[in-house]
Amino acid sequence: MSELFWPGASRAGSLLTDESLVAAMTQVEVAWLRALRDAGAATDVEPDAVPVIAPAEIAADVEPGGNAVIPLVARLRERVPDPTARWLHRGLTSQDVLDTALVLCLRDVLDQVLDDVQRQAAALRRLADTHRRSVQAGRTLTQHAVPTTFGLTAANWLTGVLDVADELVELRTTLPAQVGGAAGTLAAVTALAGDPSAVVERFAGELGLRSVAPWHGNRRTFTRVGDALVAGVDAAGRIANDVLVRARPEIAELSEASPGGSSTMPHKQNPVLSVLVRRAAITAPSAAAALHAAAAAAVDERPDGAWHAEWAALRALGRLAAVAASQTAELLEGLVVHPDRMRATAEAAGPDLLAEQQAMTGRTGDLDSYLGAADAYTDRALERADQFIKDIR
Amino acid sequence: MSELFWPGASRAGSLLTDESLVAAMTQVEVAWLRALRDAGAATDVEPDAVPVIAPAEIAADVEPGGNAVIPLVARLRERVPDPTARWLHRGLTSQDVLDTALVLCLRDVLDQVLDDVQRQAAALRRLADTHRRSVQAGRTLTQHAVPTTFGLTAANWLTGVLDVADELVELRTTLPAQVGGAAGTLAAVTALAGDPSAVVERFAGELGLRSVAPWHGNRRTFTRVGDALVAGVDAAGRIANDVLVRARPEIAELSEASPGGSSTMPHKQNPVLSVLVRRAAITAPSAAAALHAAAAAAVDERPDGAWHAEWAALRALGRLAAVAASQTAELLEGLVVHPDRMRATAEAAGPDLLAEQQAMTGRTGDLDSYLGAADAYTDRALERADQFIKDIR
Amino acid sequence: MSELFWPGASRAGSLLTDESLVAAMTQVEVAWLRALRDAGAATDVEPDAVPVIAPAEIAADVEPGGNAVIPLVARLRERVPDPTARWLHRGLTSQDVLDTALVLCLRDVLDQVLDDVQRQAAALRRLADTHRRSVQAGRTLTQHAVPTTFGLTAANWLTGVLDVADELVELRTTLPAQVGGAAGTLAAVTALAGDPSAVVERFAGELGLRSVAPWHGNRRTFTRVGDALVAGVDAAGRIANDVLVRARPEIAELSEASPGGSSTMPHKQNPVLSVLVRRAAITAPSAAAALHAAAAAAVDERPDGAWHAEWAALRALGRLAAVAASQTAELLEGLVVHPDRMRATAEAAGPDLLAEQQAMTGRTGDLDSYLGAADAYTDRALERADQFIKDIR
Amino acid sequence: MSELFWPGASRAGSLLTDESLVAAMTQVEVAWLRALRDAGAATDVEPDAVPVIAPAEIAADVEPGGNAVIPLVARLRERVPDPTARWLHRGLTSQDVLDTALVLCLRDVLDQVLDDVQRQAAALRRLADTHRRSVQAGRTLTQHAVPTTFGLTAANWLTGVLDVADELVELRTTLPAQVGGAAGTLAAVTALAGDPSAVVERFAGELGLRSVAPWHGNRRTFTRVGDALVAGVDAAGRIANDVLVRARPEIAELSEASPGGSSTMPHKQNPVLSVLVRRAAITAPSAAAALHAAAAAAVDERPDGAWHAEWAALRALGRLAAVAASQTAELLEGLVVHPDRMRATAEAAGPDLLAEQQAMTGRTGDLDSYLGAADAYTDRALERADQFIKDIR
Repeated sequence: MSELFWPGASRAGSLLTDESLVAAMTQVEVAWLRALRDAGAATDVEPDAVPVIAPAEIAADVEPGGNAVIPLVARLRERVPDPTARWLHRGLTSQDVLDTALVLCLRDVLDQVLDDVQRQAAALRRLADTHRRSVQAGRTLTQHAVPTTFGLTAANWLTGVLDVADELVELRTTLPAQVGGAAGTLAAVTALAGDPSAVVERFAGELGLRSVAPWHGNRRTFTRVGDALVAGVDAAGRIANDVLVRARPEIAELSEASPGGSSTMPHKQNPVLSVLVRRAAITAPSAAAALHAAAAAAVDERPDGAWHAEWAALRALGRLAAVAASQTAELLEGLVVHPDRMRATAEAAGPDLLAEQQAMTGRTGDLDSYLGAADAYTDRALERADQFIKDIR
Repeated sequence: MSELFWPGASRAGSLLTDESLVAAMTQVEVAWLRALRDAGAATDVEPDAVPVIAPAEIAADVEPGGNAVIPLVARLRERVPDPTARWLHRGLTSQDVLDTALVLCLRDVLDQVLDDVQRQAAALRRLADTHRRSVQAGRTLTQHAVPTTFGLTAANWLTGVLDVADELVELRTTLPAQVGGAAGTLAAVTALAGDPSAVVERFAGELGLRSVAPWHGNRRTFTRVGDALVAGVDAAGRIANDVLVRARPEIAELSEASPGGSSTMPHKQNPVLSVLVRRAAITAPSAAAALHAAAAAAVDERPDGAWHAEWAALRALGRLAAVAASQTAELLEGLVVHPDRMRATAEAAGPDLLAEQQAMTGRTGDLDSYLGAADAYTDRALERADQFIKDIR
Repeated sequence: MSELFWPGASRAGSLLTDESLVAAMTQVEVAWLRALRDAGAATDVEPDAVPVIAPAEIAADVEPGGNAVIPLVARLRERVPDPTARWLHRGLTSQDVLDTALVLCLRDVLDQVLDDVQRQAAALRRLADTHRRSVQAGRTLTQHAVPTTFGLTAANWLTGVLDVADELVELRTTLPAQVGGAAGTLAAVTALAGDPSAVVERFAGELGLRSVAPWHGNRRTFTRVGDALVAGVDAAGRIANDVLVRARPEIAELSEASPGGSSTMPHKQNPVLSVLVRRAAITAPSAAAALHAAAAAAVDERPDGAWHAEWAALRALGRLAAVAASQTAELLEGLVVHPDRMRATAEAAGPDLLAEQQAMTGRTGDLDSYLGAADAYTDRALERADQFIKDIR
Repeated sequence: MSELFWPGASRAGSLLTDESLVAAMTQVEVAWLRALRDAGAATDVEPDAVPVIAPAEIAADVEPGGNAVIPLVARLRERVPDPTARWLHRGLTSQDVLDTALVLCLRDVLDQVLDDVQRQAAALRRLADTHRRSVQAGRTLTQHAVPTTFGLTAANWLTGVLDVADELVELRTTLPAQVGGAAGTLAAVTALAGDPSAVVERFAGELGLRSVAPWHGNRRTFTRVGDALVAGVDAAGRIANDVLVRARPEIAELSEASPGGSSTMPHKQNPVLSVLVRRAAITAPSAAAALHAAAAAAVDERPDGAWHAEWAALRALGRLAAVAASQTAELLEGLVVHPDRMRATAEAAGPDLLAEQQAMTGRTGDLDSYLGAADAYTDRALERADQFIKDIR
């Protein structure tokens, strides 16, 4: 991903870059050394002596072995003295390191997305509260239905965001480490340390991850993260879709704070952030599907391609989701609402918007007389947002 | 889905058929009548008088309005006397009925899948326990790695199955009803019953569903079910992939209880159940992606196509997942294990399988001396299965 | 697919139903008998005596063998006397029959879609021609850009439709038969008839298909059909998206001939056909992806699940595409255009729409002075449509 | 894509990188200047003076306008004197430049893929010819079926490769330029140059592209390239799947020239190239689906996100396909075939492999007596390969 092919890509910062993957893999190897040392298997090792090297040092040697761990371990072993070099990676397999490193990278993604979700929630909280009296035409299947408020629209967006946030928070705290050794039996570490469970526990604890049975062939960890991330993009996409419709000049109920220009038309005010969020919503579902395709193709004690397919898919989806979360936060923080225009359109559509009221009650009042529980549902979303923001701190 | 295009389709029975959808929609309308009556809004209504009609009675009238609720309500109103006819559906919108009915249908899917997951867990429990001493070659990237046991293979399959089972159980108990009225404000029911919350609570309670804010535009309920169902198929697919590899005549470690024949070769013993489970694993990811694509395309108070796209996608995925769960249960219940062949292959590959042991310890023993924590992880999976089977009863 | 889960499903008629699949499989077996007879391999066979049976007669026996051909052949053999019974299916494998039968079924899909594409082209031709002076605001990234005409919009829709039509026509005439025997060597028919090429040619010719090398593991035939069908749905989806935007009450430039009603709001005029076409556009891409996933998972002389995954995927996509083509034709034939509203909106947006003209030329004229090649491109599309309609007859 | 997340990524070289996109966009702007000059619209412009700048110079300014063209044009205008600066980009819209530049980048992808397809075809030609007498067990649904030859296997792989090659060649020669101006009417260039057709023809000709009507909202150009590229990956994936099965130690009929090692097991000989090709086959279908999702979401004269979604999708799929093509070529060029092992396995399975012969003819011969048209189909593929290699030169 690059700014030129994915405008806004830099918002994902160092998430899932080569550098952070190398750092995470190194962190995993270091944690393993510590665990071996603390379990008494390895003595005189110096975990802190393990350097973080530049991706360029290993890039050319990745393909021959099929993964980045093999050259990384080779390079690190050249950089540390024995016995550290000898104990480095001892008992692990490449997939242990790469899976755990990706989990660490994804935890960073979840953290950044959750930061942006808080920004979204705060902005939506304000919008929902401010506009609980901003009457607008409710639209269903593109047509005017009954009156509603923009406060409720924002509250509904907020609920969608919080539904996913709850999942992300839960995922964040249940991410597992991967340790299985060559074929998931932990035979090597058992040979080295006797009962491997202390080493494994220590290793996972060092990284702040859960200790679970090896999951080399059971990829729900990654599909679950993928599913939650795409669900976050779905929720953002729905917001963008709504902004895009309501930013149309014929509707003009919403506009972006800093619309984009055109390369040829001087007057253009393009809702660029919404466009870019919508872009993510169009492609994220297939990115998440790639992870399920990989999970479903797993075979043997460790798979022949299904594992390898995950890396780029996680990277693409993780960064895409982070960019979308950030752009959505910015979009919402700056969203310009035109309540007068909302009300004017709703008033003009009055007879249609109140046709159901007429049918139900035999009479019609003004628009505000037929808002039902809009305010109550707005309150409910606000309360939930307050709780979420309190809990997450 | 039909047997001819999807062999095994009949295992999905009445799940998500036209008949069950009509029944569920009718159940929703009846629950709503009861809720209106109990809240004092509707008097003299007779919910029990509402008949269940045949799908054929409405099929021809579905397309003009774009959904099945419109002709269903019209037909039901002809069949019940006033005031029941007048109160029927009053305050609801089509999407309330269809969303809630689909939730009910999906609950049935979850129930049936969970039944089959129990069968899978029981079979896997037995396989894992029986074969904890059945040594076999661990295979990674298709090649022999280190020794393991078929007991651990079965335990790993079991863990994969239970991971998804936990999700299905949780989903099962948190499914929401949908009530929002025309545009999610509940204006009509507010006009009819004052505070709508009692009616909504009563309605959801009647159906055994959670009462939540309207989610017309927030489709995480359906994508979450879809994600869990595809994860279940992924877990089954991995089992099938393993069986298919190990049922190859050159490996011959596993075989199906009732292999299929050929239309031309009399000797053929095709592992048909595994083939059919793998088939599902190949297509389920894209079926789940369709649900996310729909969720991400939502717009307005109720969407213009994104909602409609969900129905067939849920039906296809729900039935596909149920068939796969059933076929996997049958596959596992009848799985024939050839431990002698496993051991013979492993023995023949002994030097390779113990190369890591040599590297770690400077010597090699017999295969059983290098099984690491295979047994411990098998135990752990068995305990979890016992707990699951106990809990779900 | 059913009307209740996929409103409009009945438009697909008998395409890819159980009945048509059985009929097609039977047609394949009959053609094979004729080819054997004409090549002198089989004597005294009576191809015309082979009956078409009801799907229900074989449905229960499909799953054990994994495909519908096995029980079909068994049942047919019971119904015809020897030597016809003995020669029936002799030399073929199940996949030969099912692949060729699906090709026949897909040819029917292509024919029906092409019929509807002709209807679309005729309607679009009329719209483009009628509205070449109907000035409207050109919209880009949702905002007003420069003036254009609705004639050009229709011409652009038309070009999209014709681009796909050309592909469908080409596909239609290049569909291959499948004959390979048990593992693609045609060993059986060679044993029976000597040089198999005459039999194969005769067989393909009888069915109006191309004779090519066996493609049991090379699935481009089906992915190509799938790609073309989804491309057709893409083109329809874009039309629907445009109608849905322009049918919004705030824009009101287009409306459907017979909009749908609501279950609760008496005034509602929902653009149902556009909604249903858009629905297809949301899900078709994942349906086509399933076919590629199957193709990419092929293995061995005949695959273990990848083949089986295609049947339901082809059925779903084929029917979905046919329904969308029919609904799009009806949508376009009845599309109501409001040129006065188009012009009024464009006039009101005049300064914006002509900002580029000002920038380019230093002055602005009326809207019609800045339509560029709108008319020329409209003409070009009309000419192409005329040629297409002429050629296809 | 990076080596660490996608081993082998560097094989894609400069395809679809930031640098090549900037170069292509600049080439487009230069071609436009030339076309304006040659049509007499612009005088005294110096197309050759337009520099190619570094992506870093514009990256930070891409997101505000939503695409890379806006800052590129701004920067280029600073670097060239008037009147070149004034005429630069005049009459174009961002999408004209980006669409055409992506077409140019994709043409480079097609060229590189076709180069590797030639390598594949040459290697497969050799394998098919060499092994036309290498008898092996034909395998269907994982089980032994009838005898075949490895020559035919290679010939079948070859046919799959050539089927796609034909499409790529055709696509290569029919790629269109995009010129529509702000909203597809070419109003600006009409204002500047009178009849725009000469400018457009000249522009397309300069770039070696077809001149067609504007296709801002008709995205079949990109989905067609995507479909062909994923089809190429499908064909490669099938080859990799076969190699992976036959490289299993229990089968051992094929091996890679330079298998990969393990981070822990000294003896490991992983079929890394096949693993990496299979990885691509697992994810390419969803990458292509993203392009259809974008195409189906197009709306207005130029779309609000559907267009933006394409860039990264094309980049991911284009590079993935190029890497897979290169890895497949290398895999095939070095493939080690073990005909003795093939024959030994087939001989051992003799009675099963000849069961059909027995059923057909009432007797069995040796394996070579039941190879049917294996040789003839091998010849047919070889002839086609020869023709292809001759034509493409």
